[in-house]
Amino acid sequence: MNFNDNNPLQRLIALLAKLPGLGPRSARRVVLSLMKKPEATLRPLAHALIEVADNMKSCAACGNLDTQDPCHICDDARRDRSMICVIEDVGDLWAMERSGIYRGLYHVLGGTLSALDGVGPDQLRIASLVRRIAESKQTTPVHEVILALNATLEGQTTAHYVAEQIGSSGISITRLAHGLPVGGELDYLDDGTLTAAFTARQKAS
Amino acid sequence: MNFNDNNPLQRLIALLAKLPGLGPRSARRVVLSLMKKPEATLRPLAHALIEVADNMKSCAACGNLDTQDPCHICDDARRDRSMICVIEDVGDLWAMERSGIYRGLYHVLGGTLSALDGVGPDQLRIASLVRRIAESKQTTPVHEVILALNATLEGQTTAHYVAEQIGSSGISITRLAHGLPVGGELDYLDDGTLTAAFTARQKAS
Repeated sequence: MNFNDNNPLQRLIALLAKLPGLGPRSARRVVLSLMKKPEATLRPLAHALIEVADNMKSCAACGNLDTQDPCHICDDARRDRSMICVIEDVGDLWAMERSGIYRGLYHVLGGTLSALDGVGPDQLRIASLVRRIAESKQTTPVHEVILALNATLEGQTTAHYVAEQIGSSGISITRLAHGLPVGGELDYLDDGTLTAAFTARQKAS
Repeated sequence: MNFNDNNPLQRLIALLAKLPGLGPRSARRVVLSLMKKPEATLRPLAHALIEVADNMKSCAACGNLDTQDPCHICDDARRDRSMICVIEDVGDLWAMERSGIYRGLYHVLGGTLSALDGVGPDQLRIASLVRRIAESKQTTPVHEVILALNATLEGQTTAHYVAEQIGSSGISITRLAHGLPVGGELDYLDDGTLTAAFTARQKAS
């Protein structure tokens, strides 16, 4: 490879290196592996990217990514419309769906409040959550909002703010339990989690 | 996201998860980050991939990847045509070029001999190297072949085999020196490298 920036390989590596979890070295590795079978790997990947760019949209109701708006979840008559699970981003929605534990609706905030990154309430989908809950009273009223936000400082600040905005209009606002991860060992647990798990201890029989 | 396989997002994640250094979790992260600004990231990446698939070819002489055949290096009259540096793959060629130490030609083997992976001499560009050296006698004869292969068992086996194939027809066959990496600490060095560095010790003044 010559090292001028007009080389297509160099441009591809530069774009790949900007993706989360990749850097220049891993981007080079990816490109070299793609070049081993260009027709079987490069083109399908390019077409999959274009298909996503062409077809994926954000659900106007909940912020989920899907080929249709409203999304498959909002559109599914079998889901419990009286519960809304508030998550930070679509990845968290996928994690909840993988677990299979929840059959209600979602609301994707699109991030967490962060003074450092200049993310205020207006950058998040909080107003639309409050509106959605109010409007639900005309059809199936929402009776529980589950704040499934990350157990980080930003996540908990955001959860607190969202709870305040929803107010106490007869809606039960819950959050995920803290405790020992299933399969986790006490010895490897941080003090905060251990304290939370101890405080929330439950009858064993 | 609904979890049927016809979802374009799911297909894109599956393709990305197969790339070296990525798995399902990091592929999901990449896709979510791309979806934040689809027009600024998704489409340029797709177009860069297609551009590479359309324009990159393997140099018939040396095996380098470039937009032209013969590649920029083989085509460059300023490079020393009497030296050939034999490397495993194009990534190693890039590493050599980044160092800027070498101004001769290259020969990309395309891998290393490996009984385990079923890679024999016929799968590598060894015969074409021997032919290239023989043909060079009509123009600028090659007088040095540098075996810059990885210092692994496979790399060294391959180096040995390549050296045998080239034979001793007045060509100097060299390999990269083993020793202490620049900036490296003795304490962290493996025994093999330390032994090699000690054996090859040089006069300090």
